[in-house]
Amino acid sequence: MPELRKDPISGRWVIIGTERVRRPSDFRAPRHPPRGDSCLLCAGRENETPTELLSYRDGAGGPWRVRVVPSKFPALRVEGELDRRGHGLYDVMNGIGAHEMIVESPHHHDTLATLPPGHVEDVIRAWHDRMVDLKRDQRFRSITIFQSHGADAGATVDHAHAQLLATPTPPQRLGDELHHARTYHDYRERCLFCDVLHQETDERTRVVVETEHMVAFAPYAARFPFEVWILPRRHVPTFENAGPTEHRDLARTLRTVLRKLDHALGDPPWTLVLHSAPFNEAESAWFHWHLEVTPRVRFTTALGWAGGFHVNPMPPEDAARFLRDTPD
Amino acid sequence: MPELRKDPISGRWVIIGTERVRRPSDFRAPRHPPRGDSCLLCAGRENETPTELLSYRDGAGGPWRVRVVPSKFPALRVEGELDRRGHGLYDVMNGIGAHEMIVESPHHHDTLATLPPGHVEDVIRAWHDRMVDLKRDQRFRSITIFQSHGADAGATVDHAHAQLLATPTPPQRLGDELHHARTYHDYRERCLFCDVLHQETDERTRVVVETEHMVAFAPYAARFPFEVWILPRRHVPTFENAGPTEHRDLARTLRTVLRKLDHALGDPPWTLVLHSAPFNEAESAWFHWHLEVTPRVRFTTALGWAGGFHVNPMPPEDAARFLRDTPD
Repeated sequence: MPELRKDPISGRWVIIGTERVRRPSDFRAPRHPPRGDSCLLCAGRENETPTELLSYRDGAGGPWRVRVVPSKFPALRVEGELDRRGHGLYDVMNGIGAHEMIVESPHHHDTLATLPPGHVEDVIRAWHDRMVDLKRDQRFRSITIFQSHGADAGATVDHAHAQLLATPTPPQRLGDELHHARTYHDYRERCLFCDVLHQETDERTRVVVETEHMVAFAPYAARFPFEVWILPRRHVPTFENAGPTEHRDLARTLRTVLRKLDHALGDPPWTLVLHSAPFNEAESAWFHWHLEVTPRVRFTTALGWAGGFHVNPMPPEDAARFLRDTPD
Repeated sequence: MPELRKDPISGRWVIIGTERVRRPSDFRAPRHPPRGDSCLLCAGRENETPTELLSYRDGAGGPWRVRVVPSKFPALRVEGELDRRGHGLYDVMNGIGAHEMIVESPHHHDTLATLPPGHVEDVIRAWHDRMVDLKRDQRFRSITIFQSHGADAGATVDHAHAQLLATPTPPQRLGDELHHARTYHDYRERCLFCDVLHQETDERTRVVVETEHMVAFAPYAARFPFEVWILPRRHVPTFENAGPTEHRDLARTLRTVLRKLDHALGDPPWTLVLHSAPFNEAESAWFHWHLEVTPRVRFTTALGWAGGFHVNPMPPEDAARFLRDTPD
């Protein structure tokens, strides 16, 4: 059983795998994911994955377009009761949680940038449907959906898929956002994210794409060159309370942003993370769901990831201008 | 002039370079640092670096062993007065700070693991001497010393060197640590780090190396496989108030840890970050300086760096046992 352990010094919960002892040699070589025309997530190997949780198909019994399965190597385990306890001054929980794979296409070489808009909309709908289902489980408090594209961004399987993690505690980054958004709301009685949207759409220097329901922009204090955030215009704390028109618009906006990044940077590795309010903040006046897209490019320094001080040589105003001028 | 911009949502300050507009093509290729027997930091090219700030030499006029110079491409600028202002709802400071290179050897291929112990002690003394000097500058509030070894850890120059950054605001990670350590102290009236040391030296399952003044251990909630922290036994908030016997012991402990990591993992890329209290917390009862060493190995997931939820498949108890059993 994995454990969730809290580092008392940073306040961060970490998932520690305790299933089997690895040897140092397991960590030696850089990881090269297997490449090929058929992998476990490809069409035709469905019976090798854990039991399917969801699929969208072309007609009953037709081929699937999007499919959700439990992770074959889950970071957390879905069975059992949550047990919180102390270990001396440390805090630990047993590693209860759900870890799912959202497979975006039956074909190995598709990506969110190359799939048609309607197919990307199906992917977004799968995020939504899985979140609605998992929210009924009283043991979980937060759901994170994230995706890595390209081995340099940490992807272990190169077939396009996102991962979903339902956890008994929110990730630290979400906790930080809630804290700052609540402090801002205490002072101004307004949503920080709504105010950011107003300033960005007024200034327009950092906007990349605008649609009826979504705004994609390079954040004012971007940690990485070409970092882009997508915010819905409507104040909704949790992604599962977004509506179908917002799903459609998010799909189109995300696809456009990824296509622009591909064209501007030459198919860079990237990561996306969906930030949605924890379950107990579903009616929050201060939180506002959003999506963060981060290409991993040159000039990422150690100080950022290890020390907490990011140095970004690309002003977001310039990044946004380049991306606006790049065809999608 | 670079800018320090605060992201209101995460509360994080980011250094944004605004010196010149880069084009997307500058970010396309992965960076391969130039390799060779002579680089700008090698002996013989001293007149190509900015003016030397410090050197330790074998006798007056003899060859240098350790040398400190300002960065040729500084993230922050040392000249000017600090100016804090608002930009709509955002916060910004002009990018005042010191950015220095601590060159660890005149020879290109030396590393902290291969230099003799006395030489590593000189490196540690250079950290100390530069911190004491920079602390007199009233514009700065915090000094971070960090080092990357290996291109995969973000090193841009492969000649062994650490970087020093003196900043008008502490890095977010240090701010988080201060917050949690203060909260713990408010409750228990004890130093969190001293308590961690006591538990680690009592349990001994996560200890890697112990010396008279230092304890190196795999932290209970390690974010990464084989992550190691080095803490001084004596409660001292700032590194510049550590004494010569602690410098010597830190040098030996750090060298031993790096040699063990090299042997166990085959010269992995790694990062080290020195955490020392901000200047206004120099007498803090709750902060305790320390050094974090993090090898970058396989299995580092996107969720950790982008989403704030690290998944570590290597229990720190196993990592510590492997490292204890590895020769140095």
